[in-house]
Amino acid sequence: MFKKTLIAVSLAATTLASTSALALEKVDLLIKNATVLTMNEDRTVFEQGLVAVKGNKIVAVTNGKDVEDYQAKRTIDADGDIVMPGLINTHTHVSMTVFRSLADDVPDRLHRYIFPLEKKLVSRNMVRIGAQLGNVEMVKGGVTTYADMYYFEDEVAKTVDKIGMRAILGESVIKFPVADAANAEEGIQYALNFIEEYKDHPRITPAFAPHAPYTNTTEILQKITKLSLEHDVPVMIHLAESDRENEVIAERSGGKSPVAYMADIGALTPNLIGAHVINVDDSDIALLKKHDVGVAHNMSANIKSAKGVAPVIKMQEQGIRVGLGTDGPMSGNTLSTIDEFNQVAKVHKLVNHDRAAMPPLNVIEMATIGAARALHMEDTIGSLENGKLADIIVIDTKAPNMVPVYNPYSALVYSAYATNVKHTIVDGKVLMENRNMLTIDETAIRKEALEFADKVRKTVVESGEVVQ
Amino acid sequence: MFKKTLIAVSLAATTLASTSALALEKVDLLIKNATVLTMNEDRTVFEQGLVAVKGNKIVAVTNGKDVEDYQAKRTIDADGDIVMPGLINTHTHVSMTVFRSLADDVPDRLHRYIFPLEKKLVSRNMVRIGAQLGNVEMVKGGVTTYADMYYFEDEVAKTVDKIGMRAILGESVIKFPVADAANAEEGIQYALNFIEEYKDHPRITPAFAPHAPYTNTTEILQKITKLSLEHDVPVMIHLAESDRENEVIAERSGGKSPVAYMADIGALTPNLIGAHVINVDDSDIALLKKHDVGVAHNMSANIKSAKGVAPVIKMQEQGIRVGLGTDGPMSGNTLSTIDEFNQVAKVHKLVNHDRAAMPPLNVIEMATIGAARALHMEDTIGSLENGKLADIIVIDTKAPNMVPVYNPYSALVYSAYATNVKHTIVDGKVLMENRNMLTIDETAIRKEALEFADKVRKTVVESGEVVQ
Repeated sequence: MFKKTLIAVSLAATTLASTSALALEKVDLLIKNATVLTMNEDRTVFEQGLVAVKGNKIVAVTNGKDVEDYQAKRTIDADGDIVMPGLINTHTHVSMTVFRSLADDVPDRLHRYIFPLEKKLVSRNMVRIGAQLGNVEMVKGGVTTYADMYYFEDEVAKTVDKIGMRAILGESVIKFPVADAANAEEGIQYALNFIEEYKDHPRITPAFAPHAPYTNTTEILQKITKLSLEHDVPVMIHLAESDRENEVIAERSGGKSPVAYMADIGALTPNLIGAHVINVDDSDIALLKKHDVGVAHNMSANIKSAKGVAPVIKMQEQGIRVGLGTDGPMSGNTLSTIDEFNQVAKVHKLVNHDRAAMPPLNVIEMATIGAARALHMEDTIGSLENGKLADIIVIDTKAPNMVPVYNPYSALVYSAYATNVKHTIVDGKVLMENRNMLTIDETAIRKEALEFADKVRKTVVESGEVVQ
Repeated sequence: MFKKTLIAVSLAATTLASTSALALEKVDLLIKNATVLTMNEDRTVFEQGLVAVKGNKIVAVTNGKDVEDYQAKRTIDADGDIVMPGLINTHTHVSMTVFRSLADDVPDRLHRYIFPLEKKLVSRNMVRIGAQLGNVEMVKGGVTTYADMYYFEDEVAKTVDKIGMRAILGESVIKFPVADAANAEEGIQYALNFIEEYKDHPRITPAFAPHAPYTNTTEILQKITKLSLEHDVPVMIHLAESDRENEVIAERSGGKSPVAYMADIGALTPNLIGAHVINVDDSDIALLKKHDVGVAHNMSANIKSAKGVAPVIKMQEQGIRVGLGTDGPMSGNTLSTIDEFNQVAKVHKLVNHDRAAMPPLNVIEMATIGAARALHMEDTIGSLENGKLADIIVIDTKAPNMVPVYNPYSALVYSAYATNVKHTIVDGKVLMENRNMLTIDETAIRKEALEFADKVRKTVVESGEVVQ
């Protein structure tokens, strides 16, 4: 169904050194002359390093002194550029790209605007078109793995499969009628079918995505928890996000917080990934730690809606699994976590009144190995180490905003744009080279998205039924 | 000394319509099929509009129905892209690009790190190299006018002149010895010579830049005020920025705030542009309004140093002249105000607990006509209107992060990258076309900057005298 082979390579093999060819290690891809941010446990940085890839795995990450020991089918000379693990976006709704820049600052937007909009316009076709556009945007912004929550996730999966990305795709479950299910039970069945279909896919992890505690019943949340443990799949949920959620859950549970309620009903497990997790106190954080829950920190989206800043520094101090997420493009509004680096570093300093808070390394951790931990995927992705999957990005350090680089973490966090990503490699395969998409037709995808946007304009904006 | 003529054009003239050629209006540049954000008083937006330029001035901004009435030496078909006034960066220290990503989060950084660093490394050559790099970055990020405060500003002026930008350049005056003056009096003399040299330059406005109230004496501040009125030049100053400033000024003035002290000594005038202006109360804001002072809002830099968020919404309500600034690249760390749009919109929502606060239009105002007002240049720049100077940028709306555009202000604020700027035009001249710099050699400039960075590494970082 999907291609795992490397793309055809036209570059000559690495010149053989004086060493006998027989002694050379044959690899598929060699990236050399790189400032390698390994993000391994020691956070090792190699200034003239190399990364060697065989098939879909990393087989060597070194200081580059052994560069002549490899015979590579393809060699990328990074020329001093930064080479780092692909970014992991721990929370989005990728298909919503087609709604981006609609009614951005409407009060009570989810209930007053987005749910009605989705009722009118979500379809299998919309999901396909939006997912294509969003996947292109992520690959071009250096995202190699993302976690998605939406409808018709089997349609998102087709795009992920085709484009060559890695993803956890969560099929939504919610208690009111939506485009692909009449109720929560039907949503669960849809998810089970999707899980069955994709459970063996090497790059796609199917999952349950109950929308939120307050938009599902206790029974449904418990059923999903049980099924997720049986099928060993993740559960993604919006958690401790809004005042409305606080109120509904407090009423339902006799005054409990959303996190405490979830613990009480047995829904906090290591399979759970909570998005947002803003309204939490120390006892909530302790519960998240106790149950080894992953947290998606979508700060840029959260402050846009004035919801507040999740206490992520406290969570990090407690060793909680925290990664960056963009949230969906009606909220974020872009899909590369690079767009958040700067804000995350700065806003945590602001709210903590401490310019030393949230240093650049911590942000890069939340974008790579920390995000992998949040998704419980740290054994396979999130760092450049032998045996890990070859999800790698190369960042251009020649663009004027990136000159000079005294500290690569600082340069990435305070200066980099998503468009400074030069090459994106997933599972050993180059998906973007010199900013050109290799596995899909970007122009055709944009054209479909713009056509769909015209339909959105006609049916929603111009009708005046839903305010802009 | 500088070229005002349009660059040579190779494109064919606009095809003549059936109208007689004699009836056509001859223009130098025609931008057509554009989503034109005029930023005029009515904030008119034309969906298929045009902008016509003759020499260095805009001669028509229309809905595009008259497109066949023009005969242009050069035509740019915007193909639906956004055309808007060039961005105005109201506060930076452009030459500090060569120090970017050094010691970003050191406490008390200005006094403990930056002043000592500058004592070692600021020179005429450093200012030249840094200004070149920073000017390239700004042109590529859509900035057409900027306000600078640094040393050897005559050297910055040479770059501005050569590259073709527009700038207010303020020569620093400070009470301790610096690279180009032994004391404040010498700084004033340096500034006077610079003002004399550049007072008639069509794109450069020379100015005084007393560093801050607390790093100058009352007498010096008063002398500069008097001279600025005599010479009719701007005065730029860091104002109400830091706790240290509050303390020194309170001690000097018997408990006054920096703004109240400046008012008392007669230093608040319409020639003054205050940068930061964070620590102000309602009475300070009233003083700024009374004296018609301009304010440079450098929010992204201010929150990085945990200094706080200037109460800009209050200032806007009072009609104060406020524009966006990036601050210098050791603070900001990039030089296009596009990099701040998203943060400015969101952080004001966060601190005001209101998702409707600081809507996208207000941000774009602070980047264009508001910034022009802050610099008292609103009669000549800041909007696309007949008779104004032709400072124009074209924003690519085909990049995946910009698709679709339901609301151009939202798309710019919440989605755009500095690299989405496709063409930059200053004074009627195309400085960047399809992201290629036309008036200077970008590669040579980067090379010089990287060589200088090696010197910085050797003399500062590796010596360990100043911590990284």
